Amino acid sequence: MREKVRQRLESLRKEMEKEGVDFYLISSSDFHHSEYVHDHFKVRQYFSGFTGSNGTLVVGRDMAGLWTDGRYFVQAGKELEGTGITLFPMLEEGVPDIPQFLYENMQEGQTLGFDGRTVSCREGRRLEKKLAARKASVRFTLDLAERVWRDRPPLPCHEVSVLPVDISGRSAGDKVREVREGLQKAGADYLLLSRLDDLMWLLNIRGGDVSYNPVALCYGFLSPDRVYLFLQSGAVTKALEEHAEGNGVVIRGYHEIWDFLEHYAYSGRVLLDEGSISYALFQTVAGQTGYVNGSSPTELLKAVKNQTELAQMEEVYLRDSVQLIKFIYWLKQNIGKQEITEVSAAACLDGLRRGAEGFLDLSFPTICAYGENAAMMHYQALPESCKRLEPRGMLLVDSGGQYIGGTTDVTRTIVLGEISEEMKMHFTRTAVGLLQLSHARFLYGCTGRNLDILARQPLWEMGVDYKCGTGHGIGYMLNVHEGPQNIRWRYFPGAEEAVLRAGMVVSNEPGVYREGCYGIRTENIMAVREEEKNGDGQFMGFHTLTYVPIDREAIDTAYMQPIDVERLNGYHREVYRRTEKYLIEEERKWLSEVTAPLPCHLRQVPSSFGSQAGTGKKV
Amino acid sequence: MREKVRQRLESLRKEMEKEGVDFYLISSSDFHHSEYVHDHFKVRQYFSGFTGSNGTLVVGRDMAGLWTDGRYFVQAGKELEGTGITLFPMLEEGVPDIPQFLYENMQEGQTLGFDGRTVSCREGRRLEKKLAARKASVRFTLDLAERVWRDRPPLPCHEVSVLPVDISGRSAGDKVREVREGLQKAGADYLLLSRLDDLMWLLNIRGGDVSYNPVALCYGFLSPDRVYLFLQSGAVTKALEEHAEGNGVVIRGYHEIWDFLEHYAYSGRVLLDEGSISYALFQTVAGQTGYVNGSSPTELLKAVKNQTELAQMEEVYLRDSVQLIKFIYWLKQNIGKQEITEVSAAACLDGLRRGAEGFLDLSFPTICAYGENAAMMHYQALPESCKRLEPRGMLLVDSGGQYIGGTTDVTRTIVLGEISEEMKMHFTRTAVGLLQLSHARFLYGCTGRNLDILARQPLWEMGVDYKCGTGHGIGYMLNVHEGPQNIRWRYFPGAEEAVLRAGMVVSNEPGVYREGCYGIRTENIMAVREEEKNGDGQFMGFHTLTYVPIDREAIDTAYMQPIDVERLNGYHREVYRRTEKYLIEEERKWLSEVTAPLPCHLRQVPSSFGSQAGTGKKV
Repeated sequence: MREKVRQRLESLRKEMEKEGVDFYLISSSDFHHSEYVHDHFKVRQYFSGFTGSNGTLVVGRDMAGLWTDGRYFVQAGKELEGTGITLFPMLEEGVPDIPQFLYENMQEGQTLGFDGRTVSCREGRRLEKKLAARKASVRFTLDLAERVWRDRPPLPCHEVSVLPVDISGRSAGDKVREVREGLQKAGADYLLLSRLDDLMWLLNIRGGDVSYNPVALCYGFLSPDRVYLFLQSGAVTKALEEHAEGNGVVIRGYHEIWDFLEHYAYSGRVLLDEGSISYALFQTVAGQTGYVNGSSPTELLKAVKNQTELAQMEEVYLRDSVQLIKFIYWLKQNIGKQEITEVSAAACLDGLRRGAEGFLDLSFPTICAYGENAAMMHYQALPESCKRLEPRGMLLVDSGGQYIGGTTDVTRTIVLGEISEEMKMHFTRTAVGLLQLSHARFLYGCTGRNLDILARQPLWEMGVDYKCGTGHGIGYMLNVHEGPQNIRWRYFPGAEEAVLRAGMVVSNEPGVYREGCYGIRTENIMAVREEEKNGDGQFMGFHTLTYVPIDREAIDTAYMQPIDVERLNGYHREVYRRTEKYLIEEERKWLSEVTAPLPCHLRQVPSSFGSQAGTGKKV
Repeated sequence: MREKVRQRLESLRKEMEKEGVDFYLISSSDFHHSEYVHDHFKVRQYFSGFTGSNGTLVVGRDMAGLWTDGRYFVQAGKELEGTGITLFPMLEEGVPDIPQFLYENMQEGQTLGFDGRTVSCREGRRLEKKLAARKASVRFTLDLAERVWRDRPPLPCHEVSVLPVDISGRSAGDKVREVREGLQKAGADYLLLSRLDDLMWLLNIRGGDVSYNPVALCYGFLSPDRVYLFLQSGAVTKALEEHAEGNGVVIRGYHEIWDFLEHYAYSGRVLLDEGSISYALFQTVAGQTGYVNGSSPTELLKAVKNQTELAQMEEVYLRDSVQLIKFIYWLKQNIGKQEITEVSAAACLDGLRRGAEGFLDLSFPTICAYGENAAMMHYQALPESCKRLEPRGMLLVDSGGQYIGGTTDVTRTIVLGEISEEMKMHFTRTAVGLLQLSHARFLYGCTGRNLDILARQPLWEMGVDYKCGTGHGIGYMLNVHEGPQNIRWRYFPGAEEAVLRAGMVVSNEPGVYREGCYGIRTENIMAVREEEKNGDGQFMGFHTLTYVPIDREAIDTAYMQPIDVERLNGYHREVYRRTEKYLIEEERKWLSEVTAPLPCHLRQVPSSFGSQAGTGKKV
């Protein structure tokens, strides 16, 4: 692979030379910024060998660099070895971002090339601006991969299905009406949509063009009296045509969007989201008419789940939890007795899910990471290289499904045998963080940035951090990651934060990652709900949807306060109460043991969590 | 007073009619947005009777409204009674802000008048923009108060003193150099300064024109080779002239700033802070040359205390804590035995402070609020109406001093006799919040918004909030409130937040306010410091500067976790260790009793803090 990567880069550099391009940027995106990109769009992987979901490759005449985030530092380091590509770990001290790097490394008169359909408007404009300051320029219509990558797979195309209202909770017509109201409030007349899950949500349709995300490749354009849906003809069915007609939706070809936007008779401004549309789309619209930059009303409406969706999810999450409980039981019974690998364990879990009522697909590739592999946050085991599980250490399993009635996501770290005191400490403090956040009570108006520290403080107190957010939004029969809400701590000046509203669904997934040693993550999904309203305001809280035991074998109550123990016991009580009826006798017996309340011994709290801070030491 | 207010408003309305002004806005500000305004500037108070420090009066032909923040809802409600002025409680649900109110209540062609020197640039521009959308206009050169208020006091003017380097830690010349570097980074050539504490800090001078804030009325203008200081001639001394000459500072008359800014031969852009300069200053500069809107480099440099300042503060805070301890002892000994009122108690404390080494002035008027008065966050007792203290309930004392070597601020709520279970619960949870925040450990990059919930969560869990921030920055021999850092939770889209840096000093002051019943606030001051740095980043923490016992008579450990008890005991251990040598025998004996460790009984945690959240209930 390393040699291939070097050869491909050389071919690319030849094309760059022909075009007079000094640097070429390759994003990880398809035309819609989907989380999972079809092989057709895996240009960055083709040219770098790095298989993570997020990363941008910059190729110069005599250098190549890959920028990726904290989830992938370890993995990228391994995969880039020997390719001549330098890893730029994003957000680390002293590491420039791409615009800054190009600013420092490009010279006056030089050119940066890229395919503007795969670069977000915001990135494209930032690049454009930064390079202008260097008197360098941008060419965004260059798909050089097309010339080098000869056996590139074609665009995916699957039939689109229509969701009935007893599953979606609202008709497409109602949703379109509410979106038009939002459009008016935003001071716009038209809406350009290129985010696929927003389009699926709005029109109550689902597709199959992106792995794990039940979405179809399409664009949308709302005018005051019409909805235009740009879709590959192979995706259109009779049922879709009828549904479209009933809801005032006009279907056009997927590639017609460019011509349409260029020649439409606009009589007003277009709402577009610079953060979600591509640079190429932006340039096309902005060249034709006025625009308003802002979130599409679909984003928030989609994020706040309606009562039908919440009720469906409640059931689906229970069914999904039961499968994971069965898996953990199977694993605990069989470890050390039969050969189990990361891949075969994942296959077993996936198989259990497939058997569950309403199962459609996985919501992302199951992560089964044993021992040190779990330190790689989004590790993917491969059959040829995966680890064999031994009756010691821990297995991290992060998995989820797409069901009729919901999308799930859950992580448990499972003890397979002996583990160290440090692992117990980290596991316990991770659980404490998860429970603190689960039990958060906060005034309406809080965003995830207000709450993140509840999950992180038990680890920060020990000088430990996890290099990712604590939580992300989750779709309904849609993408496992969706906005606008999230739970993160970092402050980005000017970045918009979403207030947590009742009906929003978020993950809660603190963890500890020790490179070369082990990884711990415990993840539940929670719905935001209203609690007490009084003179001090509307209080909010979380309702947990995930009910799977947190491995007591890795819990040491020495690292907990009594309230933490009580909360863990309370959670386990609920796990048993809700799931036991779906288990067979031996599973039920085991579950009752692993969810039995832990005693709350009041032990001396280790001094590292104690009272030295805030006193004594000099500033 | 109520009748007077009505008469004054009528006189004002006559002037408004003469000028063809339909609405007139009166801010609380002097020309520099000082926290305490001299009587000369108390126009809003003159016309409304409301004595709080923050509030804006809007007078229409047939209405008048006062906007103020949560600290003053109770007080303003009382003071406005009978004046015909409507209270608009800011940030409460359904209450419009002033621009929105004017937008809704003004008609096309109408005019809003105000004195642009007393309205911030940002407010002025927001009003201008909002009214433009209503086709109404703004006249910002109207000081109508000058015509109605016949016995208006003249501008204050006191001599300016010079701070030696062994107190300031850095020479004015060094500071000016560093500010010029910041100016360059911001892409500007000149700096316009109107914030008085920034000017005092920059030039190592102090004045006496604003109560409690040792600042002089002045403006500043930095060019690449000069510093212009615009100052009343009566404030200039021989020593100041020498100091100015030695540091390249040119002194001009205070009122010359307007002419200077209009006729200066600019050859570049001026850095100005739209959030701190007045609308009138902004209009003057923007009419003459280009500008960059941004924080003045002085703001951050001033906020990060240097080693000399921190060392001085450490000592000053200890001395100040000792005075408060002596006061609490005196109060506890004498309550019920002699007549003590809110005013006489404050006088006793102020007297103790005055006797302390290096004392210069109070840093704000001492708040002594007994019983229900403490529910008013910034209550000021008056000799004629103040409460007599009885041997029951609690007294809230918020006070501080200006010393050579630091500005202090501390609040304790002191038990005078029997108190209710609810008071104990609220007092204890307030203490738990204070301790949690004191012991915060966080990665560099956090702002106050990340941390606020640590102080607030113990109260939010009970459905209780305090309607103010948790913490503010504190000056060094300067204003008791200073930016840019603070500890607050509310999200204001686009608002800048300051990363907490080592050397910044902040207050930590959670509380509970029960209108008509009681008020609780416990406040310590803390310096941000660096702690462990490892592969996960630079961890930060707080170093407490305030050492005064937290009244154990109001502590009920049933509302605490063992860690909270341990932290309280640890704090009290330090209080005793640090202060005992400054006390007389009987005080010392008493202190050793009130700081003795509390036993940590593990009792059943009340169910309201328990595990019901996150489980069981339907979304």
